Amino acid sequence: MNQPRPRTPVLAASLVAGLAAAFAVTAIALPATSYAQALAPREVPAKTIPVPNSVSPGIQKLIAQPLSPVYNDIPATAEGWKAQVAAVTAATMKGVPALREALHVKSEPGVIAGVKVNILTPASIPAKNRNRLLVHVHGGCFVNGPGESGTVEAIMMAGFGGYKVISVDYRMAPDFPYPAALDDSVAVYKAATTMAKPKNMAIFGSSAGGNLTLAMVLRIKQEHLPMPAAIGPGTPMSDLTLSGDSFQTNAMVDNVLVAPGANCDKRADLYMAGRDAKDPMLSPLFGDLHGFPPTILTTGTRDLLLSNTVRTHRKLRQAGVEASLQVFEAMSHSQFSRDVNAPETKEAFEEIAGFFDKHLGR
Amino acid sequence: MNQPRPRTPVLAASLVAGLAAAFAVTAIALPATSYAQALAPREVPAKTIPVPNSVSPGIQKLIAQPLSPVYNDIPATAEGWKAQVAAVTAATMKGVPALREALHVKSEPGVIAGVKVNILTPASIPAKNRNRLLVHVHGGCFVNGPGESGTVEAIMMAGFGGYKVISVDYRMAPDFPYPAALDDSVAVYKAATTMAKPKNMAIFGSSAGGNLTLAMVLRIKQEHLPMPAAIGPGTPMSDLTLSGDSFQTNAMVDNVLVAPGANCDKRADLYMAGRDAKDPMLSPLFGDLHGFPPTILTTGTRDLLLSNTVRTHRKLRQAGVEASLQVFEAMSHSQFSRDVNAPETKEAFEEIAGFFDKHLGR
Repeated sequence: MNQPRPRTPVLAASLVAGLAAAFAVTAIALPATSYAQALAPREVPAKTIPVPNSVSPGIQKLIAQPLSPVYNDIPATAEGWKAQVAAVTAATMKGVPALREALHVKSEPGVIAGVKVNILTPASIPAKNRNRLLVHVHGGCFVNGPGESGTVEAIMMAGFGGYKVISVDYRMAPDFPYPAALDDSVAVYKAATTMAKPKNMAIFGSSAGGNLTLAMVLRIKQEHLPMPAAIGPGTPMSDLTLSGDSFQTNAMVDNVLVAPGANCDKRADLYMAGRDAKDPMLSPLFGDLHGFPPTILTTGTRDLLLSNTVRTHRKLRQAGVEASLQVFEAMSHSQFSRDVNAPETKEAFEEIAGFFDKHLGR
Repeated sequence: MNQPRPRTPVLAASLVAGLAAAFAVTAIALPATSYAQALAPREVPAKTIPVPNSVSPGIQKLIAQPLSPVYNDIPATAEGWKAQVAAVTAATMKGVPALREALHVKSEPGVIAGVKVNILTPASIPAKNRNRLLVHVHGGCFVNGPGESGTVEAIMMAGFGGYKVISVDYRMAPDFPYPAALDDSVAVYKAATTMAKPKNMAIFGSSAGGNLTLAMVLRIKQEHLPMPAAIGPGTPMSDLTLSGDSFQTNAMVDNVLVAPGANCDKRADLYMAGRDAKDPMLSPLFGDLHGFPPTILTTGTRDLLLSNTVRTHRKLRQAGVEASLQVFEAMSHSQFSRDVNAPETKEAFEEIAGFFDKHLGR
């Protein structure tokens, strides 16, 4: 006699009715008209969110930073954008030489297939990685990250992962909207497949670089180029229609991107230049992801692009792709590549490097 | 000459300084005293979050539900708790027979090792699963889910996964605080290892069941019992100290648990009965996770226990455990087992079932 037997025999019928909606399990299909009604939004009161103790001191410092000073500072002209880019580039470049030094990584400029690149080489490459080659596409919302300022992640991957990395210094908006960045990235990849076997190669990059990583694979499929063995899109801008839920839930919580439609999305608008954001080459979340190589995705719980990342993961799994997801505690957008000394940074890059190691030939 | 060359030669020094903190990459270790200062919290204004279009109509309906009617209705006495449990049980049981029928799953009560169980058997078991056996530990914050009302996930796994499942109807608080539930669950598991080979077995369960799944493995290690081949803790209550960031970021966003310290945590208090929440048997996130079997974790982006889940994932990975994470778009706590007709529900259970299939012997 193991059937549930309520110990309190008399239940208030109204309480059961009130609980029924909350605890009922929907077991029978409802007619589609059941969903035609307007659905109630969630009203979330103002709140103060402390810096958690569940992350390292380095990540705590990043979490404690104020909202990005440029999130709602939207230049009105191309010249204005270029001034902002120059300022961000200068700020970023203050740390880049020391980063290379800390990780013992050498950077060399070059040109491949007519496209500017920076080639990152670690002081020591493990024997198993000598015939392997990674292609990196940087972030910056399709506008920021020119030259060496776009190589931060590539340096970290070279240093933590022990891989040689070609970082594509692709042309950017506002001067060069879509498809310039994608054309450049695919051209470099195609040329790189003559420098290493595609089965020994991976493509990776975060944010706009995550978008480009995914769009590159769509183009590789379309053009019947050889597939890389793996890809690592970090917190990808995979949905430029901004339809994911975390654009709302993490608005004003993420201190990097801050809110949908803010500075980063205005830069993406310059990239799209009036094209339809639903185009899978602009929003690869809406593309056909069948046949993609094994994929590792990285994001954080405070990331405005948390939904982009997990939706891309699910869509890949639905397409039968081997796809792995890592979500870092309390991190906003791309904060897994911001403090080289934080243990989480090493962990994130070593996890991606290990995924590549598992899937790349030698 | 690929070095970055700002196109705007004169930059406002103040702008660069302002951006430096936001865009600098920390490349040099800072002294520990840098973190001694109080860290600024994030002030998040009130907001209205619409039901997203990025999920199925079934999940939209769950998202549109108001906050749980009991989240801030805290009974003052054991009798009050029992009345609330009875009401929730009655509400849940309205859907259980139809759920079994929809998935063609038979439920039989039984007693194993002196512990009440319900045994869920699908109408058809694939040949590869005939020698496999799953043990399920239900959720309900250590107080809810008695009898068949605790079998919803077990029915879904039996139906979607084609596995035979023993669902443990463990003793619960307030009458039976820790370690009763864990003792019962381990006793059933131990007995079950005489019914199937441990390498053909997995343990799974969500919320409190996720806590118990993890704590069971700690006990299995401690008592040198044979390990299961895999485990599937869903959105685990793995940290009863409530230290994760999503307890704050998803407060009033998650419509199931709603906020830290609310009804579910009061039930967990009854389970702990004054014990130290840092004890790894109560908060397995703080346990030694080395030697754990392959683990698949499931959560949603609005889940109050998102941080619990991703922190458990990372801790497992740090311990060298093969661990897979799936995060469902816009779902609050445990909503992946609430609507049997939603494609996401089938997807979540098939993903867990597929992970088990990969790791279990035959």
